[in-house]
Amino acid sequence: MKINANYLSLSESYLFTEIAHRVAAYSKANPDADIIKLGIGDVTRPLAPVVVEAMKAAAAEMGQAQTFHGYGPEQGYGFLRDAVRDYYGSFGVTLQSDEIFISDGAKSDLGNILELFSKDNTVLVPDPVYPVYVDTNVMDGRPVQFMKGTEENGFCPLPKEGVKADLIYLCSPNNPTGAVYTREQLQQWVNYALEQDAVILFDAAYESFIGDASLPHSIFEIPGARRCAIEFCSLSKTAGFTGTRCGYTVVPQELEREGVQLKKFWLRRQTTKFNGTSYVVQRAAQAVFTPEGLKQCRENVRYYKENAQIIAGVLGQLHIFFTGGEHSPYIWMKCPRGMGSWEFFDFLLDKAHVVGTPGAGFGGQGEGFFRLTGFGDREKTKEAARRLLDVLG
Amino acid sequence: MKINANYLSLSESYLFTEIAHRVAAYSKANPDADIIKLGIGDVTRPLAPVVVEAMKAAAAEMGQAQTFHGYGPEQGYGFLRDAVRDYYGSFGVTLQSDEIFISDGAKSDLGNILELFSKDNTVLVPDPVYPVYVDTNVMDGRPVQFMKGTEENGFCPLPKEGVKADLIYLCSPNNPTGAVYTREQLQQWVNYALEQDAVILFDAAYESFIGDASLPHSIFEIPGARRCAIEFCSLSKTAGFTGTRCGYTVVPQELEREGVQLKKFWLRRQTTKFNGTSYVVQRAAQAVFTPEGLKQCRENVRYYKENAQIIAGVLGQLHIFFTGGEHSPYIWMKCPRGMGSWEFFDFLLDKAHVVGTPGAGFGGQGEGFFRLTGFGDREKTKEAARRLLDVLG
Repeated sequence: MKINANYLSLSESYLFTEIAHRVAAYSKANPDADIIKLGIGDVTRPLAPVVVEAMKAAAAEMGQAQTFHGYGPEQGYGFLRDAVRDYYGSFGVTLQSDEIFISDGAKSDLGNILELFSKDNTVLVPDPVYPVYVDTNVMDGRPVQFMKGTEENGFCPLPKEGVKADLIYLCSPNNPTGAVYTREQLQQWVNYALEQDAVILFDAAYESFIGDASLPHSIFEIPGARRCAIEFCSLSKTAGFTGTRCGYTVVPQELEREGVQLKKFWLRRQTTKFNGTSYVVQRAAQAVFTPEGLKQCRENVRYYKENAQIIAGVLGQLHIFFTGGEHSPYIWMKCPRGMGSWEFFDFLLDKAHVVGTPGAGFGGQGEGFFRLTGFGDREKTKEAARRLLDVLG
Repeated sequence: MKINANYLSLSESYLFTEIAHRVAAYSKANPDADIIKLGIGDVTRPLAPVVVEAMKAAAAEMGQAQTFHGYGPEQGYGFLRDAVRDYYGSFGVTLQSDEIFISDGAKSDLGNILELFSKDNTVLVPDPVYPVYVDTNVMDGRPVQFMKGTEENGFCPLPKEGVKADLIYLCSPNNPTGAVYTREQLQQWVNYALEQDAVILFDAAYESFIGDASLPHSIFEIPGARRCAIEFCSLSKTAGFTGTRCGYTVVPQELEREGVQLKKFWLRRQTTKFNGTSYVVQRAAQAVFTPEGLKQCRENVRYYKENAQIIAGVLGQLHIFFTGGEHSPYIWMKCPRGMGSWEFFDFLLDKAHVVGTPGAGFGGQGEGFFRLTGFGDREKTKEAARRLLDVLG
């Protein structure tokens, strides 16, 4: 009996534990401090009314023999795959429903997709980054190379001559930096992937925050991407589904490697190790894509973006470098006065009673940067912005 | 770029496709034939009323900011882990809540658990068997050995001298045979696993069909099992959750291999590649474990078991060998008159207009056997039983 020793190479993340610890200690020492949390990466606004109604109606169906649903298709019901297909159509991407796989969320699919690939492939991952891209590859023993996000490239690293990669992670709009790739930049990545015979794993979880028609929502807006990319998306941020759990993954017909259609492999993976997303959740997700559902969900996205704009406005006034805040709930700011990530964390907590997330927690390139988010309450966000201006002005 | 070539070694299962094809062809040629399907492996009765009400109430909570739930704990909410712990207590098994991991179903966990183990381990799998045990190991390139279920051992194979295994799959009550291991038999497996330093992967998905207090619901009723077993269970058959999706996996504190607590590895796997089960589904699952929920769900289980008993009664009258039908929705019968599985399938379809599942579809040892299930409608099951008596009497 041998265990998977790769797990022993995983580094423990103490980021959120350490934040909680420092905040608790500060609160204890300063019981009257009115602390505002702008570190939150989770939605706070409730599900849209049409979504709640769809979920209740589906629950009622499950209680009647005539309308009860047992095992559904592992890849999702046709009604939802068609709704996602039509949603992609709204930004000009033509998909077939059988290229769309419904799941319980992008995090599951981003991890599970790696089963389709050999452990010998090399992986290119942006730094700073959502830690799951790295950890899931470490678990498989796959070598990871980092591409540096910097102030100079606006945290949108581009392909480099001489760097070989088989799997490439891109996330746009990015978590944690909020930076968004342009069409031209993504075209460079697609060209590079095609040259290298690589596959791009494109995380589009924040696409609904894009407010400029010239910026791509999907990698499949880029010519050639259907031959080199898989896209992951989720209703977590689009429709507040972080606790409801529904995502979708697009594997195009044309995507083949070593003579194998990867769509066929993914179908086999999902039919063997997954039994489909809950019927009631799929009905709720379908409601998101109705005209009324999109309208209600977009109001929430607008609310979060306005919060982010309030913070961005202050950073602009202060002439502090930042990315994000416009097509993203995230703001990725340079720590002022040359402070390190944790130093600035302590400074902000002590002087402004505002909590954010030290950029160092997202990778080596995150040192000296700091993440704030628009997922909070409007009045508290305004108050936090005033305090930022106060202590940094 | 290399794909995972192990996927190319998977054998395609044509079982249910071939059944559908033969039934369609027969129906076309015999449009007046009143065909009864006893091949179904899915529940047909609706969710219990308390479960539906809990799901509706949870959906309403999600629509209000004060009661909205975002990301939950990946391993499940405390309220549900505690409910499962108390349920285990009802058959005398003491668990800690943090040994219980809530998921979207046993199929996901049975596949995903393999990530904790080296690809070099050897695997012992019963034959006939739920095909997922074999396929998930083939995907990893892990060598699989079979242990034969036969008429002589009542389809409950026991450990054999000289057979080495690192991972051992047991499923009791069994799918597809309906056979149930006794305490003494499971003790033999636990002793063998401890000797071999192996881990038993125990699939308890059908435990709620056990009607005899002397038969074990859980491997953890057996002394020593906490040092060598992981248990998978599901609400699919217990509470009709095949389309609602909720399961749970128990990894005991004491289970260590190579100095590592496997519970810790599983927690790391789930927190990295899973984002928890839908809040509304977890609230629905909690309702299953209330006194009223258990009462309502057990009425459905009783209904399915009575159906199975009706079929079993006829097979008894006909002196045909079978397993299951008592503590299981499944009946695994020997094909009469020396017929092969598919031969008997055609015979039954043609002579009795009854559809079942050829045993050969579950592995080499299934040839010459046939699966019938109690998941159908009562009146149709009675009519099918009459026809069996007619054509085989």
